[in-house]
Amino acid sequence: MKIYFTFEPRPDLREPLVEEFPNIDFVFHRKLKEDELSGVDVLVTYGEDLNEKRIELAKNLKWIFVVSAGVEKMPHQAIHDRGILVSNVRGIHKKPMAESILAHILAIKRVLPFIYENQQKGEWNKDTRPTELNGSTALILGPGAIGEEIGRLLQAFEVYTIGCNRSGDDVPYMNETYQIKDIMSVLPRAEIVISILPSTPETKHLLTYEHFKQMRRDTIFLNFGRGDLVSTDVLIKTLEEQLILHAVLDVFEEEPLPSSSKLWELDNITISPHFSSHSSRYLERSFEIFKPSLRKWLNGDENLENKMDILRGY
Amino acid sequence: MKIYFTFEPRPDLREPLVEEFPNIDFVFHRKLKEDELSGVDVLVTYGEDLNEKRIELAKNLKWIFVVSAGVEKMPHQAIHDRGILVSNVRGIHKKPMAESILAHILAIKRVLPFIYENQQKGEWNKDTRPTELNGSTALILGPGAIGEEIGRLLQAFEVYTIGCNRSGDDVPYMNETYQIKDIMSVLPRAEIVISILPSTPETKHLLTYEHFKQMRRDTIFLNFGRGDLVSTDVLIKTLEEQLILHAVLDVFEEEPLPSSSKLWELDNITISPHFSSHSSRYLERSFEIFKPSLRKWLNGDENLENKMDILRGY
Repeated sequence: MKIYFTFEPRPDLREPLVEEFPNIDFVFHRKLKEDELSGVDVLVTYGEDLNEKRIELAKNLKWIFVVSAGVEKMPHQAIHDRGILVSNVRGIHKKPMAESILAHILAIKRVLPFIYENQQKGEWNKDTRPTELNGSTALILGPGAIGEEIGRLLQAFEVYTIGCNRSGDDVPYMNETYQIKDIMSVLPRAEIVISILPSTPETKHLLTYEHFKQMRRDTIFLNFGRGDLVSTDVLIKTLEEQLILHAVLDVFEEEPLPSSSKLWELDNITISPHFSSHSSRYLERSFEIFKPSLRKWLNGDENLENKMDILRGY
Repeated sequence: MKIYFTFEPRPDLREPLVEEFPNIDFVFHRKLKEDELSGVDVLVTYGEDLNEKRIELAKNLKWIFVVSAGVEKMPHQAIHDRGILVSNVRGIHKKPMAESILAHILAIKRVLPFIYENQQKGEWNKDTRPTELNGSTALILGPGAIGEEIGRLLQAFEVYTIGCNRSGDDVPYMNETYQIKDIMSVLPRAEIVISILPSTPETKHLLTYEHFKQMRRDTIFLNFGRGDLVSTDVLIKTLEEQLILHAVLDVFEEEPLPSSSKLWELDNITISPHFSSHSSRYLERSFEIFKPSLRKWLNGDENLENKMDILRGY
């Protein structure tokens, strides 16, 4: 039995694994080597190093464990045709992302950028008016697992939460839920608008200039989903005209954001380089999913956590 | 019946008050004028403009409503001897302060200063490792109303909370509570140490260099109570030797922090100019306490919210 990791985990994660499964031949490589593939039973990968040829080379491959949520770059059909089991680490981004979003909202409300700037200048300056999060209303676009976690934390801060999803069906930790198509009428109620929508044909350029005009002037808009939700031009126009108070963006139409982009020049924006889900505990959590899955799989149980349908993509 | 405000509230707060109580003679002055005092029944003040002489001048004064939590600067004995009722806005700082503390902790965990710095330089840079708040342990020194609110929010983030107070008695939203005298043995368990202790003879220089040596190297220390909890020299030594990860200070032994202070030169510190409790909603909240109190008082009921014993100071 051979398990091939196409990346090198830290010793404190790797060693207990090797110790727990002494009969398994573990191979850890910094990068995938094709001549290693032929004898591999289980592949552990970030999901960006596979193609049809490599699936063919891995003729004994029975299970791919993907240390990522997305499987866009994998050869879906080839994997499906061979009946290879695929499971991933879906949900692993939930806590770090929700914490990033709360961090950004609270930082703006409690004027942390103002504090940092004055400290840099060596100035004891109280000449600003911090606001508060409690008592506000937040609109969450796309309340899946991440959105629920954001809603749960916002409600702890006594924020009224409104969810918007395709169906309009109730979602935990949302005080109300609407259909995405009704978004225009809900926007004026929220001073916090958060998108964690994925990129699909329906969400591309979903938010237009008209939507931002509909928002309150004191709105904080956060996009932590996908960059093509709003066109860059609409964002620039919105922020230049100060239709809203501030935008916090973790995603952009073009990434990395080109150094020539006008967005860098605006002062009512926070530019986060698409790493709100990053965490020092990412691999640790992945191993917490992998180890029980491996135990199950070795016992012939293929009903693994986060088992996915590779053709559907989730 | 005359009510004298020794500050000028915004019209949107002032006007509904005047309207609700048409038989009362309201006077609003930007500053206290002594010749106004003689006919005053109720005084509404920030508590810093009174002295024995003024209490004597206000010979009809029956109730002082203090728009602040502290009454240190008031002539305690003179007020007590006249039997003047005193009530304040205790508890009003709870939410903004707890939000500030959460903002600072999350900002450090989710690397907001790093994001802001790179944005200023126009650089798309992910080269750092954000950590997470969930799963950590926090020690809260002085868990009164503010500490409870901090504990409540930290628990929502799945933080394990340990309180330290004089009695060691259980406190809501603390998983465990110890006596202040046992602090040394609890310190190594926490990666977040928050003080909101008031200034008393027992808390002066309570935390010594030995305490900081006892803390974990990845500790975030936040002082939002009073500046004399730690001597400035101990703080500088602790931060220079990197005994802890970071200090967030809202209070200092000398305020404003002198521009010559070495603290300004350190990079593992956040200097907040003693305004973590400031809020655009401060007066609005004060009026929410004052109005029902006034109704009660006019009905002869002296059992007002936040009625205090001026000699004890709370």
